[in-house]
Amino acid sequence: MCTAVSFRKRGFYFGRTLDNDSSFGEEVVIAPRGFYLRGAREHYAIIGMATVREGYPLYYDGMNEKGLCMAGLNFPGNAGYNPPSAGAENVPQYNLLPHILGSCASVAEAARALKAINLTDEPFSADMPAAPLHWMISDGQRDLVAECVEGRMQLYENTVGVLTNNPPFPVQYAALSDYMALSSDEPRNAFCPALGLKPYCKGMGAMGLPGDYSSHSRFVRAAFVRNNYELCEGEDGESALARILSAVEVPRGCCRSGDGWEVTLYSSRMDAAHGVYSYTTYKNRAAERVALGGVSGDALVRFTADT
Amino acid sequence: MCTAVSFRKRGFYFGRTLDNDSSFGEEVVIAPRGFYLRGAREHYAIIGMATVREGYPLYYDGMNEKGLCMAGLNFPGNAGYNPPSAGAENVPQYNLLPHILGSCASVAEAARALKAINLTDEPFSADMPAAPLHWMISDGQRDLVAECVEGRMQLYENTVGVLTNNPPFPVQYAALSDYMALSSDEPRNAFCPALGLKPYCKGMGAMGLPGDYSSHSRFVRAAFVRNNYELCEGEDGESALARILSAVEVPRGCCRSGDGWEVTLYSSRMDAAHGVYSYTTYKNRAAERVALGGVSGDALVRFTADT
Amino acid sequence: MCTAVSFRKRGFYFGRTLDNDSSFGEEVVIAPRGFYLRGAREHYAIIGMATVREGYPLYYDGMNEKGLCMAGLNFPGNAGYNPPSAGAENVPQYNLLPHILGSCASVAEAARALKAINLTDEPFSADMPAAPLHWMISDGQRDLVAECVEGRMQLYENTVGVLTNNPPFPVQYAALSDYMALSSDEPRNAFCPALGLKPYCKGMGAMGLPGDYSSHSRFVRAAFVRNNYELCEGEDGESALARILSAVEVPRGCCRSGDGWEVTLYSSRMDAAHGVYSYTTYKNRAAERVALGGVSGDALVRFTADT
Amino acid sequence: MCTAVSFRKRGFYFGRTLDNDSSFGEEVVIAPRGFYLRGAREHYAIIGMATVREGYPLYYDGMNEKGLCMAGLNFPGNAGYNPPSAGAENVPQYNLLPHILGSCASVAEAARALKAINLTDEPFSADMPAAPLHWMISDGQRDLVAECVEGRMQLYENTVGVLTNNPPFPVQYAALSDYMALSSDEPRNAFCPALGLKPYCKGMGAMGLPGDYSSHSRFVRAAFVRNNYELCEGEDGESALARILSAVEVPRGCCRSGDGWEVTLYSSRMDAAHGVYSYTTYKNRAAERVALGGVSGDALVRFTADT
Repeated sequence: MCTAVSFRKRGFYFGRTLDNDSSFGEEVVIAPRGFYLRGAREHYAIIGMATVREGYPLYYDGMNEKGLCMAGLNFPGNAGYNPPSAGAENVPQYNLLPHILGSCASVAEAARALKAINLTDEPFSADMPAAPLHWMISDGQRDLVAECVEGRMQLYENTVGVLTNNPPFPVQYAALSDYMALSSDEPRNAFCPALGLKPYCKGMGAMGLPGDYSSHSRFVRAAFVRNNYELCEGEDGESALARILSAVEVPRGCCRSGDGWEVTLYSSRMDAAHGVYSYTTYKNRAAERVALGGVSGDALVRFTADT
Repeated sequence: MCTAVSFRKRGFYFGRTLDNDSSFGEEVVIAPRGFYLRGAREHYAIIGMATVREGYPLYYDGMNEKGLCMAGLNFPGNAGYNPPSAGAENVPQYNLLPHILGSCASVAEAARALKAINLTDEPFSADMPAAPLHWMISDGQRDLVAECVEGRMQLYENTVGVLTNNPPFPVQYAALSDYMALSSDEPRNAFCPALGLKPYCKGMGAMGLPGDYSSHSRFVRAAFVRNNYELCEGEDGESALARILSAVEVPRGCCRSGDGWEVTLYSSRMDAAHGVYSYTTYKNRAAERVALGGVSGDALVRFTADT
Repeated sequence: MCTAVSFRKRGFYFGRTLDNDSSFGEEVVIAPRGFYLRGAREHYAIIGMATVREGYPLYYDGMNEKGLCMAGLNFPGNAGYNPPSAGAENVPQYNLLPHILGSCASVAEAARALKAINLTDEPFSADMPAAPLHWMISDGQRDLVAECVEGRMQLYENTVGVLTNNPPFPVQYAALSDYMALSSDEPRNAFCPALGLKPYCKGMGAMGLPGDYSSHSRFVRAAFVRNNYELCEGEDGESALARILSAVEVPRGCCRSGDGWEVTLYSSRMDAAHGVYSYTTYKNRAAERVALGGVSGDALVRFTADT
Repeated sequence: MCTAVSFRKRGFYFGRTLDNDSSFGEEVVIAPRGFYLRGAREHYAIIGMATVREGYPLYYDGMNEKGLCMAGLNFPGNAGYNPPSAGAENVPQYNLLPHILGSCASVAEAARALKAINLTDEPFSADMPAAPLHWMISDGQRDLVAECVEGRMQLYENTVGVLTNNPPFPVQYAALSDYMALSSDEPRNAFCPALGLKPYCKGMGAMGLPGDYSSHSRFVRAAFVRNNYELCEGEDGESALARILSAVEVPRGCCRSGDGWEVTLYSSRMDAAHGVYSYTTYKNRAAERVALGGVSGDALVRFTADT
């Protein structure tokens, strides 16, 4: 389970939490222009969080040298891909993020690319079946959600700037109306004006905001914090994004996953203007930063993350 | 568990639901002026729902010939009475309702009477220990709540016109502020004005109103319905009160009580101006009506209720 | 806004509330076999609530002589019909209920009929455009929901036995999982076993059940009450259904509709085995009953309802 | 508004957030044994967050050399102190924390000290009236809450290890029962077993946990996270406490305070075993640490905090 959030005050930032019950050896991985990406002749350089298998980066999220950002989030029971189809531009699920970030400079280009492909369920390897994901893709102007359900690619403008997991994005978005009366302001007494009800503390205007760790509740909570966030003097957008993501981080012991516990393994922020990927892990709350830097070269550049 | 509600549009009406897992042989009982009420020389005539034991009415609720109304509601774990005290005006719990309705013509008089007495835990009989109750007492002007906690009689003005059970009334009342933003009107989008969230159906302004059968939730729900109720043309207050109480009735199977089910055994409305006691039972949704009628006589007049 | 509920203990019963801000002259209308129903050569007799315009019954809900029951409920913003299509079996929205109840003896037959037709937006008259509805159709065995969205007829098995309004049925059904931990039993302390938290009243196992009048909340509440309902000794299924519907009735003043108030104009129960249509109105809580009786004849039989 | 939390796994830690709309020049201040504390002949050394006025530390929270920890939290509308009384041990509100931490080595001693004093409303200065606070006091074994309401000092064992603001602690604690069914485990379908409802994501067992920033909701949320927290391998208690407090931090823009915004100005953790005071501020999420170190000396040692 995960949460992705975009933020566009004092710059454009894109971040996500990755919640899981165990680590898969995450690394910050730079794929420079010359690194061989399957299916691509030439491509933009990419930086992001990935697991490297057989020398190949399986990206969870990332940003390219044009500042286009993308994250894949768990979408179990809803994601449904196609078998490869002769004559189609087949892109296996594991390679979708490199395909898009390698070839697109904007959300508009990504949307065109997504419509052009056949997203397939080809596994990366025998023990790595296609993962059931959906994606959020953002640039400085827009956020897009891509969901492949029953083999059909659906694209949604994401005006709320948040994505979590189930149910599908349109259902999540529509359910925000259930919370539309919630406010960062003090509540007025509409229950019964004659009663003279008064708040007994600050913050009561948002009573009803869910605080648990389900994908539904993280969606609503992140939407509220992200869309009400006010930068303080001197605060940059990355700090704001870190605080927004902090509101949906999963502490250990609060969310069961099988015999273990779901936790926020890492929380990342990408600074599109400067090509910097920052993250904290559950074990290390101090931020690590990696810059995309030079985009040439043909070998992966890898930085182990202590997830 | 129970709910009591007053209503003062087009007359003054007072009603209550009585929720329990089994009947105790409830009857509508008239105690005329000449019936011997323990501790009283002369008294007002009373009509109300009671269980009669050893020829004596143990009232759950009632109204006197002056239109003063009173209901006792379960208050387990909080009600605490005193032992009898020499020199004090000792009133056993089982006799409080006859004591007040027999001697008081208004809430003001009831308040004075309640302050003057020592409410005791003397049982009615060996197998009938004092019941842990608190009371709502209403006339055409005011509602009063009386709670005897740790032996101290506490009186509260009840501006919301509703009483249920635990926790104590001041805590219930204060918690209404948690719901103060709820409204019978359509919600405005305060969550994030930029998002253009819209209602997808009517009635969304009150989302957050609790719908279960706990005493907390019945208190909030009855308060909302009672204080927002708008009479329609030609509707009398009794009809309105019946609808308000209907919102907190407990259907069988939804509220466990030991091995059985808590249900609304009966729901009553008292019309103070006309001295009429109306009620429905769980078994019989058609309203039965009994008028106080003549107030003289010395024998109980009893009407079996099919609870 | 409305709620439809089926009930299958001690018989098969089907009922609905109709919530609106003003009456349209509702009547209980019997269309005997010989009455001319548009598009039908011969048909089953029907009894139900309708508005009669130009001598023709516009049914809100009804039951046929075979015990098949059907109700149309508001579905604004989602219902989308087709223009008539040459060569198709065109059925205008206003005639769908007579079309189905006139020709089908079971849900299975209704499902086949629904798949065969083209549901059109042809208005009944210039001032009566097609109404945005969806439908619940029930017999003694099953409940079916029919939704025509963007011109495509979708059929859903309805295992929860409840239908309200927006959002579409599959979304409403999926959201029940948000409430799956709610229980008619006492809650166990799972929050923090070491704390020794205890209930302070009965009914706390269902805390979280919504109590407002939105279509979402009525769906969840009706689902909880309907699926947990336990008949008491001697209680018939119609009484049970009346109590279930009572839990979602809308009192006046609690749900704004424009300048007026949404209220439950009527609440009906159909007894399939005996062909009896019973209902109460907001103005008259005493049940009225009309039997389908003889099915021959060619004229509408009409009973004014005081809605 | 604020939240205080104790934590006793892998050591004893005590922390708090301080939420306000503007800074008062907070500093980490060490008062060594020789510093003159009003009303004390000799006293334990203290480290904590304070505003220094006229050379005197007005502590918000702190820890003494014995590891006893204490924090004052806003309690407006409920805190009520006494005038000074001749013959009583008068302690002004502003000096309560130094009085207790200066003289007590344990919660047991603090409880005795609190019962012995008359807590007064004497202002520190003309422009610094007594602040309406209540306090949490903790050692390695127990947590105590002290509330002075209508002039009466009330002490409560705090088994949940959390304190926020209004309403009074006993009411907050009792209301935890409203959430007792919430669980870190997956929910079981108790709503209607026959329906086969299933979770659609992880974390749904805690649906109903409040996510807003009111004192009520922060209390419940902190209680849930604190009491369910599971340390991961190698994690120390301070890290855990930081994560628990993170769940109730207030981001800017989400909680109105007059014309400004309530934010978590700082979040602190005290390590009793090592005498270390750690904190982050809203402006600086990197932890700063100050050790109590030597306890002799007679001058305040001050470290400006960038709140």
